[in-house]
Formats: sequence, C-alpha cells, structure tokens
Amino acid sequence: MNYTIQPAVVGASGYAGFELTRLLLRHPRVKKPVLFTREGDTADSARLEELYPHISGNGGCPMEPFSWKALADRGVNVLFLATPHEVSRDWTPEAVRQGLHVIDLSGAWRLACAASRAVYDFHDADPEIADQLTARAVYGIPELNRSRLKEAPLVANAGCYATSIILALSPLVRAGLIDLGHGIICDSKSGVSGAGKQPTQKTHFVEVAENLSAYSVFNHRHTGEILEQLGLQPEQLVFTPHLLPIPRGILSTIYLRLNLPMQAVEVENCLREFYAQSPWVRIFPQGKLPQIQYSLHTNYCDIGFALAPDKKRLVMVSCLDNLMKGAAGQAVQNMNLMFGWNEEEGLR
Amino acid sequence: MNYTIQPAVVGASGYAGFELTRLLLRHPRVKKPVLFTREGDTADSARLEELYPHISGNGGCPMEPFSWKALADRGVNVLFLATPHEVSRDWTPEAVRQGLHVIDLSGAWRLACAASRAVYDFHDADPEIADQLTARAVYGIPELNRSRLKEAPLVANAGCYATSIILALSPLVRAGLIDLGHGIICDSKSGVSGAGKQPTQKTHFVEVAENLSAYSVFNHRHTGEILEQLGLQPEQLVFTPHLLPIPRGILSTIYLRLNLPMQAVEVENCLREFYAQSPWVRIFPQGKLPQIQYSLHTNYCDIGFALAPDKKRLVMVSCLDNLMKGAAGQAVQNMNLMFGWNEEEGLR
Amino acid sequence: MNYTIQPAVVGASGYAGFELTRLLLRHPRVKKPVLFTREGDTADSARLEELYPHISGNGGCPMEPFSWKALADRGVNVLFLATPHEVSRDWTPEAVRQGLHVIDLSGAWRLACAASRAVYDFHDADPEIADQLTARAVYGIPELNRSRLKEAPLVANAGCYATSIILALSPLVRAGLIDLGHGIICDSKSGVSGAGKQPTQKTHFVEVAENLSAYSVFNHRHTGEILEQLGLQPEQLVFTPHLLPIPRGILSTIYLRLNLPMQAVEVENCLREFYAQSPWVRIFPQGKLPQIQYSLHTNYCDIGFALAPDKKRLVMVSCLDNLMKGAAGQAVQNMNLMFGWNEEEGLR
Amino acid sequence: MNYTIQPAVVGASGYAGFELTRLLLRHPRVKKPVLFTREGDTADSARLEELYPHISGNGGCPMEPFSWKALADRGVNVLFLATPHEVSRDWTPEAVRQGLHVIDLSGAWRLACAASRAVYDFHDADPEIADQLTARAVYGIPELNRSRLKEAPLVANAGCYATSIILALSPLVRAGLIDLGHGIICDSKSGVSGAGKQPTQKTHFVEVAENLSAYSVFNHRHTGEILEQLGLQPEQLVFTPHLLPIPRGILSTIYLRLNLPMQAVEVENCLREFYAQSPWVRIFPQGKLPQIQYSLHTNYCDIGFALAPDKKRLVMVSCLDNLMKGAAGQAVQNMNLMFGWNEEEGLR
Repeated sequence: MNYTIQPAVVGASGYAGFELTRLLLRHPRVKKPVLFTREGDTADSARLEELYPHISGNGGCPMEPFSWKALADRGVNVLFLATPHEVSRDWTPEAVRQGLHVIDLSGAWRLACAASRAVYDFHDADPEIADQLTARAVYGIPELNRSRLKEAPLVANAGCYATSIILALSPLVRAGLIDLGHGIICDSKSGVSGAGKQPTQKTHFVEVAENLSAYSVFNHRHTGEILEQLGLQPEQLVFTPHLLPIPRGILSTIYLRLNLPMQAVEVENCLREFYAQSPWVRIFPQGKLPQIQYSLHTNYCDIGFALAPDKKRLVMVSCLDNLMKGAAGQAVQNMNLMFGWNEEEGLR
Repeated sequence: MNYTIQPAVVGASGYAGFELTRLLLRHPRVKKPVLFTREGDTADSARLEELYPHISGNGGCPMEPFSWKALADRGVNVLFLATPHEVSRDWTPEAVRQGLHVIDLSGAWRLACAASRAVYDFHDADPEIADQLTARAVYGIPELNRSRLKEAPLVANAGCYATSIILALSPLVRAGLIDLGHGIICDSKSGVSGAGKQPTQKTHFVEVAENLSAYSVFNHRHTGEILEQLGLQPEQLVFTPHLLPIPRGILSTIYLRLNLPMQAVEVENCLREFYAQSPWVRIFPQGKLPQIQYSLHTNYCDIGFALAPDKKRLVMVSCLDNLMKGAAGQAVQNMNLMFGWNEEEGLR
Repeated sequence: MNYTIQPAVVGASGYAGFELTRLLLRHPRVKKPVLFTREGDTADSARLEELYPHISGNGGCPMEPFSWKALADRGVNVLFLATPHEVSRDWTPEAVRQGLHVIDLSGAWRLACAASRAVYDFHDADPEIADQLTARAVYGIPELNRSRLKEAPLVANAGCYATSIILALSPLVRAGLIDLGHGIICDSKSGVSGAGKQPTQKTHFVEVAENLSAYSVFNHRHTGEILEQLGLQPEQLVFTPHLLPIPRGILSTIYLRLNLPMQAVEVENCLREFYAQSPWVRIFPQGKLPQIQYSLHTNYCDIGFALAPDKKRLVMVSCLDNLMKGAAGQAVQNMNLMFGWNEEEGLR
Repeated sequence: MNYTIQPAVVGASGYAGFELTRLLLRHPRVKKPVLFTREGDTADSARLEELYPHISGNGGCPMEPFSWKALADRGVNVLFLATPHEVSRDWTPEAVRQGLHVIDLSGAWRLACAASRAVYDFHDADPEIADQLTARAVYGIPELNRSRLKEAPLVANAGCYATSIILALSPLVRAGLIDLGHGIICDSKSGVSGAGKQPTQKTHFVEVAENLSAYSVFNHRHTGEILEQLGLQPEQLVFTPHLLPIPRGILSTIYLRLNLPMQAVEVENCLREFYAQSPWVRIFPQGKLPQIQYSLHTNYCDIGFALAPDKKRLVMVSCLDNLMKGAAGQAVQNMNLMFGWNEEEGLR
C-alpha cells in the first residue's frame, strides 16, 4: 500500500491521546504516527511505552518536543490535537494555514455560536481568523456530517457525552417527532477517564470508588454542542453528567415526549433507517437496552429505547466507550472519511 | 435498662436481614434478636457467623428453623420479616393475629391500591383478612408517618428506591409547588446488594463490574409505592432504575418543573422546614450535591438540588444506603417509633 | 487466501469460549467458527449475540446443538473444547479418532502423571485409550512446546495460573539456577472471570467487590501442571491463589532463592535469551515490574523481577490476561503453531 | 461521666485523620476533639464537614490553625498526629516536653534502630532529645505492649502493613516455632487509602481500577518495624506490598516453615492462647481463612492459616482495615490503654 499519510499526535500521554496512538499504530493506511509533547504535558518521558508499558513490544514510540519545524521535517500532513482546548485554539490557525489537516479532540472549535463559546473563555490572537476557521470547522460526528468531512481542513471531534446524546436524538429530532416544548432530559453517566489523566482530588481512587456523583448540573461545557447540533434552545434540554466508578464508558438515559403516540416498531424503524448506512451505530430492538460493557473497547454507539404504555413517553439509552467513539475512535473515523476511506478502517 | 422487647428476624442470612441483625445486636433497648431460618433460605447454616464471619467474636448468633411455637417459646414480641414478599404475605396475618408487632421489609403490604398490587401476583388464603390488614398497615417511612407508626401492628417498611424518591419529593409535592402535569422523571442508580444475595447471572461480578445498565423501565415494582405515597397518577412519573458496579448505595436524580419560578433559597427552606424534626434527613445547601459515599453505612437520606437559570426546572439528587435507610436502618427507625423511643436509638 | 481450516467451538457461551469465538471471528486464516452448544450449557440461546450483545453487528453467530454428525456435515477440522473437564475427557477420544485436531481449554488432558490426575476424578470409558491419548497430548504453552505443537492431534491448553507461573520460572529452572530445595512460593491473584460464568455465591458481586480472599491453599488443581511442567516435587512449591475484585487479569508474585548470587543483569539476560524468539512474552528491565493493566486484552505474558541486596533472594512478577494468554489467546496461538502459521496471527 | 480528656487531632483532613476524628466524636470517654490544620494540609477548609459531608449533621467540626498557644488554650492533653513523618518528628519533642500524651500515626518514632531509621532521612534539631524520646516511645500495637502503654508519653502507632504481619507472626516467633533461617515471605495487598489523600498518578482511579501492582519490593519503609518487633534479621524476611483496586483493607499472605512438624490444632492453639485476652484479634479455625470484607470498618485483625500436608510449611492469612486497626482504630485502642480504660471503648 502506498502510505502517503503521516499523522502526528500532540498529547499522546493523555488517555485519549494514548488510545488514539494505539489506533494509529495499527491503522493499515497511515504511517507510524509522530508523537509530540509540549510544555506542560502531564508526563515528561522520552518514549510513550515508559508511560504506558501496555504498548511495549511494538518497536518503541519515541516522543519529541513539538515545533513547527519538526512537524515539517517529519512530513506530517494530518495533525491530531489531544490537547487542552486553549492550546488547540492557539495552535490550530497556524496548522491550517500550513495546509495541514487538523483533527482536534478538544472543545476548541466545536461551537459555532459565540455566546455558547463564552464557557471556554478563549483569548484569540486574531479573532477574525478564528471566526473564519470556526466557519470552516466540521463538527466531528461522522454519522451526521459524512459528506462535509471529506477534505475538511479542520474537524472538531465531538465531545464524549455529546456524541452519546446527539446520536440518540438526531433521528427523532430531525423527523420532528419530539415534543420539544416539553423538554428533553439527558441523565448521563461516565467513567473516570473522561476527566483526564491529571490527578486531582476528584479522580482519586478513594473518592470515586463505591461512589456516584452528579456534577456541573445546568452548566456542563458539552451542553452547547448538544444544543447546536440538535437545534434546541437552552430551555429545551437538561443535561446532568455523573461520575461512575469505572475507568471508561458512558451511558446516557434520555427522557422525552413524542408529539404523537407511536408504536415501538415505528420508533425502532426511525432509528434503524437513519443509521442504515452507519456501521458504528447499533440500534437495539425494543425491550433490549444497551449496557456500557457491550461497547467497551469498540467504536460503537449503541442505542436502545423503551416506550411507555401511553406510547408517548420515551426513554432512550445510549452507550459508548468515551475513549473510542467518544474520542479517539471517532477521531480515526473522521480521518477515514476526510481521506475518502472506508470509515471502519483501522477500527475493527 | 428494662429490656422487654424481644425481636426476631426471619431471613437474617440475606443482605438486608444481616444488616438488620447487626443493628439489633447493638441496639440498647432490645434483647438479642432470635434468628429464624425458613425452608428455601439461601443458606443453611446453624449460626449466622458461619455465613458472615464479619460478626464472629460477638458470642455467636445461632439460627433456628421458624415455627409459631418457637416464636412463642422465645417470647418474641416484634417480628422482622426479611423474606420474599410472598412469604411475608403468607405469614403476616397469623403473626398479627397473635398480637405480634410485624415489620416487614418486603413489598407485601406496601400498596393500598389493589390494582397496583397486581405486579406482585399475591394469592391470599383469606382475601378479606388481607384487605383488613392492608388497611391497618403503615407505610414505613418514619418521616412521613411518624405518628401512625406508634403502636402500629404492621409496618410495611418502604422500598429502597422508593424511600430515596419519596423523601426528596414529598416536601414540594405536599406544598403543591410542582407542575405535576408536566411529569416527574426519577433516574435512580443502585448498588448490587439491592438485588439480593441469591446469585444470578445479573449479579455475577463479571456482568456488573465495569458496567452500568438500566432495567425494568416503565415496570419496576417500586413504582406503585412512589405513586401512592406521593399521590401521583401513573402518567405523572417515569422511574428508571440502573444497576451500579458498587455493593451498596442509591443515588436518585429527579427532574421536575415548578409551578412558579422560585429562588433557590425558597426551595432549600421548603426542604429544611419539612425535615426540621427529622434527624435522618440531611438537606444540602444549593450548589452542593449529595454523593453516594456520604451516606454509606449510615441511616441518612441526603437531599440536594440545583435550580435552572429559569428558576423553574429543578434537579434534585437524593442518596441513601439501600441496606440502611433503604431497608434495615429504616426498619429499626420504624421500630423505635413504634415503641415510642427516640428514632435515632441504635442507629448512630 | 485459501481457507481450509474450519474451527468449531463447544462452549462459546462461557467467558473463555466467548473470548475464543471473538478471536476466531477475526482470525485471517480460518473460516467463521461453527458454534456448538451442549446439554447443560449455562445459557440456552439460539445466537451468541443474544448472550453477548458485544458482538452484535457482525452478521450473527448462530449456535447449534453439538452432534458428531453436525461436526462432520460442517466440515470441522479443528475442535476447540471450552467445556468442563469431564466433558472434555469424554468427548476427546472420539474427536481424535475421527482425525480432528482438538484444542482443549479444560484440565482434562494436562497431566501426564496419573497420581496428579486424581484431583479431577475422571471416569474414563476406555482407560487404555485415555492413557494413549494422554501420551500424545501436548501441553499447550507454545513457548515451551513450539515444535511438538506442529500437527499435534491434541493440545491441552495450559491453565491460566499455571501459564503465568511456568513462563516466569522456566528459564531459571531449566538453567538450574534456582535452589529448589529451599522451595518456591507462588502467590497468585486472579480476576473473577477465571471462576467461570456460572453464577455462584463466590462470584456474586457483593461477595467479591471490596474484597480479597485466598482459596484452595495447598490443594488447587493447577498445582499438578506447574509441578509437572517445571519438574518439581510437591514439597518444592507452595501455590496460593487469591480472588481479586476485577473481572480479568492475573498477577503472580513468585519468591525463590538462587543457587549462587547473581547480578540483576544476569537474571534479566537469562529471561531475555530464553524468550528471544517468543513474541508473546515481554521481559521487563529490573526495577520495572509488570502490572495487570499492561497485558489486559492482549496475549502477552509480562515478566519482571526484583533482586534482594544479597543477590540471592529473587521476587518475580508475572502478569497476563486470564482469558487471553491464560485461555483463548493461548488456544489460538497453539492453533497457529499446530498449522505452521506465524504465532502472532489473529492476535494483534 | 467526668470528661477530663481533651484530645486534639492534627491532620483530620487526611483519611486516617478523618477516621480518627469520627471515632473520637463518638468515644464515650473523651471530649469532642479539637481539630488543627497546619500549613501544607491537603485541604484548606474551615470545617471538616466541608471536606467530608459524611459527618455533617453532627453539629459541625470546626478546624483551626495549629499553634502551641491554641493547644494550651483549648486544654488539650492528648495529641494525635496524623501528619507526615517529618512533621511528627519535628513537633513531638515540644509536645512531650509540655506534658502532653502524644499518639503519632506516622513512622516518625517507630524505629529504635538508628540504621533502620535511615530510610526516613530525619533531620533532628536536637539529636540527643530525639534519641531520648525514641527510647521512651512505645510501639503502638496494644496486643504486644499493653502494659507499657499505660501512661506512656509517646505512642508510635504501628504501620498498617506492619500490624497485619506482626500480629500474625508474633505468637509463633515468640514460641520459637519458626525456622527463621529458612526465611519468612510476606505478600501483602492493600487498598488505596493507605497511600493517602494527596492525589498522585499512582492513586488516580484509572491507574488503580482493574489493576494490581507490586511496589517497593525489598525497600518498603514498614520493613524496619516488622524486623524490629519480631526480632528478625533483614535476610530473614521478604515483604512485598501490592496496591489493590479497593478503597480500604489489607490482606497479608505469610509463608513460613516450622522448626518441627505440628498439627493444625497446635498451631491454632498457639494463636488462640497468645490472643486469649485480646478482644481485637480473631483467630480463624483451620480451613477457614479471613477475607478483607470481614474486618472492614472494624478494629479487628483477623488471622487464619493453612498447614501443608508435610505439617511443616505454613501459610498464614491476616486481614485488617488499614484505616481502623491499621491506623485510627489502633490509635484509639492505644489511647484507651494509655488511660487505663477498656480497650474496646469507643470502638464497637
């Protein structure tokens, strides 16, 4: 095969960055990824396998300090940023200017609406350029933006919670079946890797184990992406994330009211048809709900539902692995589409 | 002290029965409990410490087969049934007839409404007696039925999920502050001990660990008690239980809409005033939500909330230990009130 | 590619059987496996994805009742038995007689010594045939029996604990470096999937979580294989298994005394040289010990060590995934060698 | 009751300090403890219940900055130091000089042997005073030093691992039954709270969950106390700690050889007689081994054993809760004896 694609990853020492590196290492269509560190990285090692002995035995994964020169010298043409959002925000304009394809795993470029972006408190060196780039950025859920991804200069890889919710709701929202005035409740639960590798009191084993906690109620940063992608108003959505005592996996339980009574089979068909061409979404038959275990270590988003006896109140359950379909797997899926490859490539 | 109260426990080998036995063993106002086994018990041992070495070193806890004669011989005057609901349903009429105080931890006597009871599929030997007994049974959440518990012949100890939800919602429901027409969503998560000690595929470690699953959506047995105690119609409530990968603890996240906009301080005051005399309910100040860990191994139900910017949408979080405030601890609290004692007795 | 190998799996509904099926489904050199159920299987479903929705979306994995006729009709030429040892013991003679290659994951054929086999209490229909077969069976640790595996009629896939211990000790034992008279201590810890999918009190989530327990001290069935493969006498080994509150993974901590003082680098070299041609064993440099996480979901056995200041007392740490290198992965590795393929095939 | 004892705790915000505070709050013989913070504490809150909402509802636990003046003003006469060892080392001389009883939970005063103390790298302001104090300090395992604890000026509360090992081995060591020349192996496993509340990479949930790791092989700080208390030479002991994916609890598996063959009943009797007057040690009958769960949240150390068929090789299993018998519970037990109270006081 003719490998012309040279990926690089900044932030391979984080959980999503490491998962991404693992995927790229075995991706059949790209060269071995170049790994860049930057000042302030959680870890400071010369080789990724020192931080993650999981991947030793593969010939070694050296890391080197990031510089634009090194990037050019190594012939990088697709740049994955697994970096804090303010870093992504700072670096992306130059990367795009240099003609690189950028897939950013942070929240830096996900929001079109300036008001929503306020939660991130960006300080753009050149606001005009940032605005132009925002307009060109493609929100990175492939199932919804497949055609726009092709040759996109910048993909804003979707948030993990957001992906689980947006994929579950899109078919019904787009079909106009939901009573939006009634409002939608999204009760999400995530494993701890979603909080990042940096040790904090919140991620201390003793604080998380044998526990469950809700956090960021009414003010989680992913709310903006969910609203934008589903075309909802703030008062139409409540999103409550919870921290689960497991390393990875997300389950979102979603509550909504249908505009008109529907049969379960109609709901199921609506979902199935919407994702008929999407290999990474699995629709469960009514009465069978997805569980976190089913999609762990895969790129699937699993979606199921239960319909109330009144045929109007609907509970949806959506599961995914936050490091795969919620981050690194989706990033690879986005890359696949960006370069016109099969979207399953490197993900089985 | 004059110990005139001789408790007995049927089903001490189950998780709730064991927790109850532990509490009774150190309760300052009752004699050492008599422990009865019955045919079909999960375990068949002569002594409780063989099943639970946790309590060895306390002089020994012999178990004996249940019989009405043994009950009389041992001078039992308060009978705790930690038995399957059909057993509780069968045995209670005779126990009450004999003048015993009965505290039943199962769902046998919780529901006043015959239609709701259908989920249990009871086969009463004497339906008339059963109806009379149902009418006399007190639903066992002390905070709501304190006065009726005094000298009650039969306490139907409340369900674990139900307790977490009913305690959170009662103040606002009784004050008429909730838009019931809009409906209430209860998204609950429970540790595995709630599923009982009997090993099943569902409780196998490998199936539960690193997982989360919703179950019994729109048809969990606790739904009936929640509706009855809160005076709600079925279409006004959605209750979704989930199985958490932890041994014990429940967290319920509750979504509702207020009739009129309220300030957070008003919500907090409403809760605080309602539970001003209730030592086992802790109200958290706005912005601080309870977590499962905080109430583990205690008899507390912790309640907190977050109010949306629109001052109408309210998210409540309610936590308790399913084996304590959700079962054994509440049973002891009920006993305390039944006999006119301080409701904290034996629970600190 | 010319797929002439048709594998079948009996017992795909168990944990090891399922893991094996997953591996075979993506193995590039074999046909899609035929899945057989047998009377007494833990689950009774028509399709494997009903038991394990993890693999839905792959076109479906039907299961059918086992019969010799079905086996022949489907053209099976390699039979994996993920069955209880007494079933494996009963079925294997006929399978070998029919010319099938058999890879048995149970303990049925691992022991050459009749006395050691007593722990299994076999009742062979034809003891003579059984003895002949025992003599032809190859103990299935590829790193030790690579050449004998080629075209072996019967592979007795090694036990999970045994693999972790035998791989760690073989280099030093074979080099005669260990003071065997002093004795070797193997303190092993395993995740719960090693206990099988059948729910029991021992595997109940509430019994395992927040716990650790030693079991079968001085009488675990794997002891015999360890002794035989290492050529040790019973009094030269103590093996203590423990049950860890995790789903999968084994860590064995091994204590021994060297015959003569050695430098750490000499120990490391001894290990490295022994496994120089073994892609599935990773030797860690002194001062860096393997952890369970590193080899989870891989076919690696990771081996590290620490040497006491006296240069004679050695602590070795050996880790593997009990369902991969400890069962299904090793079975595939054995198959690869049996058919002359690269031993990494289908395992990356 | 005449409460003349006023305890104070420095370091109540750590795990051991918090557990200790909880115990002191309900201890029937002491006043409510004064809580002191010091510069560098992990948390900086005005009230302990802000850090640990677990204890809210008890009237409030204010914390105040430590000073000698505050100590005197509050009438403190027993000072618990739940502080880093270097802080304990610095503060204790002045506290003892002022006539306070000091119970130090760190490793500052546990070692009599100067050479062993080197692992702590102390820098004593006045080495002579430090030496005098070392000579007067009582090693705080009450079962071994009951009489010396009475009115001791300084108790060096024993380490958690050390307690589990020393209690298991003392009866046999003191009876001269162990072949010390052969050496003793202690393979210990601990929950994460033993590593302290300070978040580090090592205690990050994602690093610990689904994992097991050995650490500090041949160089753990508790080795010195074990050697000293058992009267062993360094080459007679191997101690390997492991980090378990649970919040609390220790299990030590101990391997030794007896000088002469013994019957199991003799071993059991030796243990039972040694601890006949010790309410906080439970000896298990042969064939029944302690598990971590049994002693969680109690002050028990549970000890069991298995004897090899040769009647010479012995495996002992010792369990305790590292925050209770391994730290705070033992500290209270030490205090009880220091003041001549029943050693169970405040610990049931």
